[in-house]
Amino acid sequence: MKIAPGDVADLARGAAFLGTGGGGDPYIGRLMLERALADGGSLQILDVDEIPDDALVIPTALMGAPSVLIEKLPGGDEVITSLRKLESFLGERAYATMPIEAGGINSTTPLVVGARLGLPVIDADGMGRAFPELQMETFHVYGVSGTPMVVSNEYGDSAIIEAHSNWMAEWIARGITIRMGGTAYIAVYPMRGRDVKRTAIRQTLTLALRIGRCLSQSRDAHREPFAALIKELADTPYGFGKVIFHGKVADLERRTTQGFAKGRAVLRGIEGEHRTLELIFQNEYLIARCNDQLMAIVPDLICVLDSETAEPITTEMLRYGQRVKVMGVSVPPIMRTPEALAVFGPRAFGLEEPFQPIEALHA
Amino acid sequence: MKIAPGDVADLARGAAFLGTGGGGDPYIGRLMLERALADGGSLQILDVDEIPDDALVIPTALMGAPSVLIEKLPGGDEVITSLRKLESFLGERAYATMPIEAGGINSTTPLVVGARLGLPVIDADGMGRAFPELQMETFHVYGVSGTPMVVSNEYGDSAIIEAHSNWMAEWIARGITIRMGGTAYIAVYPMRGRDVKRTAIRQTLTLALRIGRCLSQSRDAHREPFAALIKELADTPYGFGKVIFHGKVADLERRTTQGFAKGRAVLRGIEGEHRTLELIFQNEYLIARCNDQLMAIVPDLICVLDSETAEPITTEMLRYGQRVKVMGVSVPPIMRTPEALAVFGPRAFGLEEPFQPIEALHA
Repeated sequence: MKIAPGDVADLARGAAFLGTGGGGDPYIGRLMLERALADGGSLQILDVDEIPDDALVIPTALMGAPSVLIEKLPGGDEVITSLRKLESFLGERAYATMPIEAGGINSTTPLVVGARLGLPVIDADGMGRAFPELQMETFHVYGVSGTPMVVSNEYGDSAIIEAHSNWMAEWIARGITIRMGGTAYIAVYPMRGRDVKRTAIRQTLTLALRIGRCLSQSRDAHREPFAALIKELADTPYGFGKVIFHGKVADLERRTTQGFAKGRAVLRGIEGEHRTLELIFQNEYLIARCNDQLMAIVPDLICVLDSETAEPITTEMLRYGQRVKVMGVSVPPIMRTPEALAVFGPRAFGLEEPFQPIEALHA
Repeated sequence: MKIAPGDVADLARGAAFLGTGGGGDPYIGRLMLERALADGGSLQILDVDEIPDDALVIPTALMGAPSVLIEKLPGGDEVITSLRKLESFLGERAYATMPIEAGGINSTTPLVVGARLGLPVIDADGMGRAFPELQMETFHVYGVSGTPMVVSNEYGDSAIIEAHSNWMAEWIARGITIRMGGTAYIAVYPMRGRDVKRTAIRQTLTLALRIGRCLSQSRDAHREPFAALIKELADTPYGFGKVIFHGKVADLERRTTQGFAKGRAVLRGIEGEHRTLELIFQNEYLIARCNDQLMAIVPDLICVLDSETAEPITTEMLRYGQRVKVMGVSVPPIMRTPEALAVFGPRAFGLEEPFQPIEALHA
């Protein structure tokens, strides 16, 4: 896989789709990556199977509430501090970096690191979408330790965390992130190539680029984008996609609390849709309900898209009066096992409804 | 200076006096140290002048709200984890440890470390009393960095913090301590012998032992303890001591908030005292006022003592109806410079009254 400067906008847009409302404003990630490439950086993307089993891989990411990120823009190099500190602590240089999630700014962050340092980036991640917490990773579900990890900020303050569980790592790192002003830069889940092969969700950078390209090609050709998108997804591990609602944002509650952007949106149906849809989010959209009917639920993707252009709308960009279509998308089997659902299924977010696959809800 | 098992009770009591309401329950510190000595540990106490200039000194302490500590007792060895991790990070073994404050459990914590590891303990500290925050140190005032530092808990979770300022180190370490349940174990302000000589407040372990001995000897001899204590202090850098109030605890507000035990106590005068005294505290007693008259103010010591035995009463042990005498004590000149007052004078605690020496208030 190659990523050229001309691909960055598409990649960022596709990542925002996979971010299912979270992962941060993709435009910020796009600017950071375009600048890194304009500064002469080049990108080497590796397929999971190309990594040696013993190679050290250190994923890199931004941590925090997306609602803070839009007011506290990253320069782009801060996360390199975290990577280098973790390398020093481990006494070993990383062979490659990779994303911890597929979504918004955290799809492009490791690419910025890769372009700046000449470090290969692996075409895979540990969430297959965006999730709000660090233990919500297939890495964690299948036994990889998130620590030692490094949290740092733009002033060079940092903490190297070691924890007896990935839940505790999340808890402590979140506390530090809050005290660093709501966003921070992390190097986390250091692991060997063999663990990446065993636990990662593969080819999600490729997938983001395919989704983004599909959207911009539809737009350029003045084609209806939703049908094209559903067709594109059919050929991926995210096989089932469906527009489950068409409406206008009629109510919106949003608060940044305990380091997360939490809230609720209500959409009133338009153009033949007479129902009302309720969306609950914690950084990402978690559940969609029509009155008492379940329409889609985490970990399946719930994507809120501009009703004309299908541009993804992140939770912090939701505005009263926006006309949107809501898509539900199935996630790959590795994300729907009982072990996976125990970590990032509905119960992990305090939701009462059990998981039901989107394709079963809309059979 | 020698500390024998028979000295521990006196040392802990004297440390509680210097803790000026904070520093944690001295009885807990006493038990931890007595056990370490009973297990065969021996203590080597060094005077500041005995440390080589190049020797690495790593102070050790408990961090957190004393009100939490009485419900979450330390085993005694946890802080050794922090010391060892900081040694690993620095790539150098410590020549000695020392207290960061003179007060309650944090006077005895480094002694437990010393007894367990056979590590010398320096007879000095960086507060000359107890203070609630990490930057409130003469080490900080006179230019020593608090970081790299380690925060750990009883489960082996830890963080190595590096910060661009000691204020930020406090802010991040406090956040971690809160998330670790309100108390944690730290190794902090690693420094060379020459910096200890330049910045430490000397012989405060000796002082704690002298104060504790004075109190127990008065008690054993059925003598009035306050006069003896004032006489004992006259011969130290804490030269001026005076009983400024005699009363009963009539009102008490206390809350554990943002990792601190904060509150307010009102004492109603008894036995010829017709006024009412207000005490404000944040872990330690900060100010004593009679109506609008200033009676004593931080950093001078405000010690609340049992009115019969002169046993020090920490803020978390204050109870409605207790009969107490309140003593004000002057602190050494190194703690009253403009630089020092800027860091731990009244303004640092949000108090409006400027600092006034206790001996001037009661001339």
